[in-house]
Amino acid sequence: MSFQKLDELGHRLEALEHAIAILGADEATHMAVGGGEKRAEALASLAGLYHRQATAPEIADWIAAAESEALNDDQAAALREFKRQHTNLTCLPADFVERQTAARLRCEQLWRDLRAKNDWAGFLPALEGVVALVREEAAMRAEALGLQTYDALMEQYDPGNRAAEIAPVFAKLKAFLKDFVPEALAVQEERLAKRPLKALSGSYAVEKQRELGLAMMAAVGFDLTHGSLSVSHHPFCGGVPSDVRITTRYRTGEFLSALMGVLHESGHALYEQNLPKEWSHWPLGKARGMAVHESQSLFVEKQVGRNPAFWRWALPVVERHLGEAWTLDDMLPHVHHVERGLIRVDADEVTYPLHVILRFELEQDIVAGRLEAADIPEAWDAGMRAYLGLSTIDNPADGPMQDVHWPGGAFGYFPSYTLGAMMAAQQWAALVKDHPAADADLAAGDLTAINGWRREKIWSQGSRWSTPELIERATGEKLEAGHFIRHLKQRYGRS
Amino acid sequence: MSFQKLDELGHRLEALEHAIAILGADEATHMAVGGGEKRAEALASLAGLYHRQATAPEIADWIAAAESEALNDDQAAALREFKRQHTNLTCLPADFVERQTAARLRCEQLWRDLRAKNDWAGFLPALEGVVALVREEAAMRAEALGLQTYDALMEQYDPGNRAAEIAPVFAKLKAFLKDFVPEALAVQEERLAKRPLKALSGSYAVEKQRELGLAMMAAVGFDLTHGSLSVSHHPFCGGVPSDVRITTRYRTGEFLSALMGVLHESGHALYEQNLPKEWSHWPLGKARGMAVHESQSLFVEKQVGRNPAFWRWALPVVERHLGEAWTLDDMLPHVHHVERGLIRVDADEVTYPLHVILRFELEQDIVAGRLEAADIPEAWDAGMRAYLGLSTIDNPADGPMQDVHWPGGAFGYFPSYTLGAMMAAQQWAALVKDHPAADADLAAGDLTAINGWRREKIWSQGSRWSTPELIERATGEKLEAGHFIRHLKQRYGRS
Repeated sequence: MSFQKLDELGHRLEALEHAIAILGADEATHMAVGGGEKRAEALASLAGLYHRQATAPEIADWIAAAESEALNDDQAAALREFKRQHTNLTCLPADFVERQTAARLRCEQLWRDLRAKNDWAGFLPALEGVVALVREEAAMRAEALGLQTYDALMEQYDPGNRAAEIAPVFAKLKAFLKDFVPEALAVQEERLAKRPLKALSGSYAVEKQRELGLAMMAAVGFDLTHGSLSVSHHPFCGGVPSDVRITTRYRTGEFLSALMGVLHESGHALYEQNLPKEWSHWPLGKARGMAVHESQSLFVEKQVGRNPAFWRWALPVVERHLGEAWTLDDMLPHVHHVERGLIRVDADEVTYPLHVILRFELEQDIVAGRLEAADIPEAWDAGMRAYLGLSTIDNPADGPMQDVHWPGGAFGYFPSYTLGAMMAAQQWAALVKDHPAADADLAAGDLTAINGWRREKIWSQGSRWSTPELIERATGEKLEAGHFIRHLKQRYGRS
Repeated sequence: MSFQKLDELGHRLEALEHAIAILGADEATHMAVGGGEKRAEALASLAGLYHRQATAPEIADWIAAAESEALNDDQAAALREFKRQHTNLTCLPADFVERQTAARLRCEQLWRDLRAKNDWAGFLPALEGVVALVREEAAMRAEALGLQTYDALMEQYDPGNRAAEIAPVFAKLKAFLKDFVPEALAVQEERLAKRPLKALSGSYAVEKQRELGLAMMAAVGFDLTHGSLSVSHHPFCGGVPSDVRITTRYRTGEFLSALMGVLHESGHALYEQNLPKEWSHWPLGKARGMAVHESQSLFVEKQVGRNPAFWRWALPVVERHLGEAWTLDDMLPHVHHVERGLIRVDADEVTYPLHVILRFELEQDIVAGRLEAADIPEAWDAGMRAYLGLSTIDNPADGPMQDVHWPGGAFGYFPSYTLGAMMAAQQWAALVKDHPAADADLAAGDLTAINGWRREKIWSQGSRWSTPELIERATGEKLEAGHFIRHLKQRYGRS
């Protein structure tokens, strides 16, 4: 039976994924500093091995044959995802992939060096090479999938997402934020005029912050028997569903950024830990995609972790671990701080979407050939001035050179961040409709019902549905900017 | 060119070895407790993948063809080791290896649980499964290699070692120890009667002990940019040469056992870190075998780390880290403490060989089918009573359940420990002949010349020679119990 062969292939690929994921997490946490060269060799070799195994010529035959076999529902869904994975992996010729991998690695290495030197001119030729290849890639993926070029790139990260559906949602959000960012900043200024910010700075030993982080992880549902918290330079969620590795970084003078980072990564981890275990060796058993994944991290960080109700429970926990007592009025201005800034990863939830929408707009033009790499700085600057009133024309390092995505050839990924934020708000709204006591639960530190809802609606579904279908099934409606807008108004607006 | 194909195969295998080694070290140090099942699956699958890659049908042809190619000395040596590895691996079918790996991991996991509960009966069925598989394995290996079954198992760990040659060396040592253990105990008693033992017990924070361990590691030559020190239940040296993972376990009331453990594992690590890097993807570039490996760890732990000269240097280092000042007369009675005990890993260098000789004798009977797993506790008890005057019949946890080796299916490995102790003494004797200032170097904390000698004689040789050949070349004579016996007499005897 051909499906059986795919099933066995799935087990072999799962083992390689396991190795690659743990070696990747280990590299950033526990590896000796001199171990990098051999680790890179090992990971490149394992990636090649994975690719050869996942694209062996007989697999297309197994998929074709399995389509006429008697399969149950789960198997039929698994077959669809095996096929999707296979198409994604085989639609680019091997020599193109090699050329592109080399160009991406070169451009990323150059970027690390030249971003620090704010040297756009030196970086441009490498980026132009990556852009040329991404246009080729988009054309080939579009041809294989019967999609528009930009959609074909997004399809890798979020199956089913289409620019034609996302653009109007983003347009509505952008129109709202045009007036709302100034409003939120004014509200904040008035509040601070009445009650000045109480600094949270003190001296917080790393070990105490770590214990606080572990307590928060446990509270939001992180299973500490199937995961751990370490330190790394850049926080991430890695590892495997049976052993999810999340990381943070600590500063002893301030605890909130590490803590919110832990909550964010815990959101990713919950998704991984609660994926359907019986499908773990099928593509069907994987998380659906990047936007949905981000919706899970932002659900925990923003909908839960910055919710005033949650802080009613959390303040005494913080006090127990750090030995300082703050009131809600002390804490919330920090948790809800809004600020116009140049750097996406430092942005708050009000201004963040504008960073993403700018990139989404530029990316589509770049992929379509309407915008050349050489013209990005001016287009970026124009966008930043229009959306956030900030200029980056003399500062490309904090403008179009700030992210690794483009040097790494990952076009079509950026929308996922803001789609995730909107999906999280929409999920919270749907959850509250089903379970009106959600805020009271948070205030009691009890996420049982909240996580039960998420397990049923999102986590247990794996990759059964396309991204838009999953959201519609979970929340009862298509993706809709209104929920996120209401969320921002309620938390940051002049209510 | 066929050698080139073997060379490329070597790179692919090195990547899989890297993954397996790091996943193995990670399992014991950083893995979440619930990650074991998936880790076992992944390791079993990677072991199978390794096995299939290393035993692909074309490899035998490459080896045969390479034998008539023009090869330089290194390549010719590499080819011999490729061939040895290929023979060792092809004598077992892939499905047998996967079955055995799964059974070993299951039995090991069970052992971890049931040893703590002293539950031999619960453990027995899993051990019986492992024993049945090891007998199958021994028969297949013996057939392929033209060796006796037990020799065929040892051949995996120490190429060239034969029970017929080891047995008389062990017999000489056993005969010596029969009278020498009582003598050493009597000498110790007389000394303690004159000068009572000064306790080293205090309260030593784990972090301070760890810093002390790192200082000692650096002193004996451990490269901290290519390795690290962690905590695990059972101390080990794992990882890869570019990133050697050693572990220890701490008790806050006592520091010497963790420290001596760190020195022991550092000895293993030095060997790995100093293997010839240009051969790292060839079997030729690997450590020769387990007895030689143990000779390197025991060289550092016993010949260096328990040498009074070393302690002249080490005492102020301990004082700096732990804040207590001891004299040589305080310290050496602890470092040279002799005691009849049940636990091999806690045994001193005088009684340790008797633990090994017991296991060596039982193992040969188990593999030959003369002893069944169910009868091990009685045979063990009889041996312990005869050799050390101790009974374990009511205490299997501290009897045959004390070691991971048998649950892990590693029969034929135990002799390596005492062979290593003898080889270390023989290497020290040869070193002192070449470099009479060795003791003075230790007293100055300077291991440059000592490690230079070891690098030339042992580390740089990789797997160029069989175990007996390597020892003969390094020391100028065949393995000989006399050096170890003289070492024990000098350190512990009535001089």
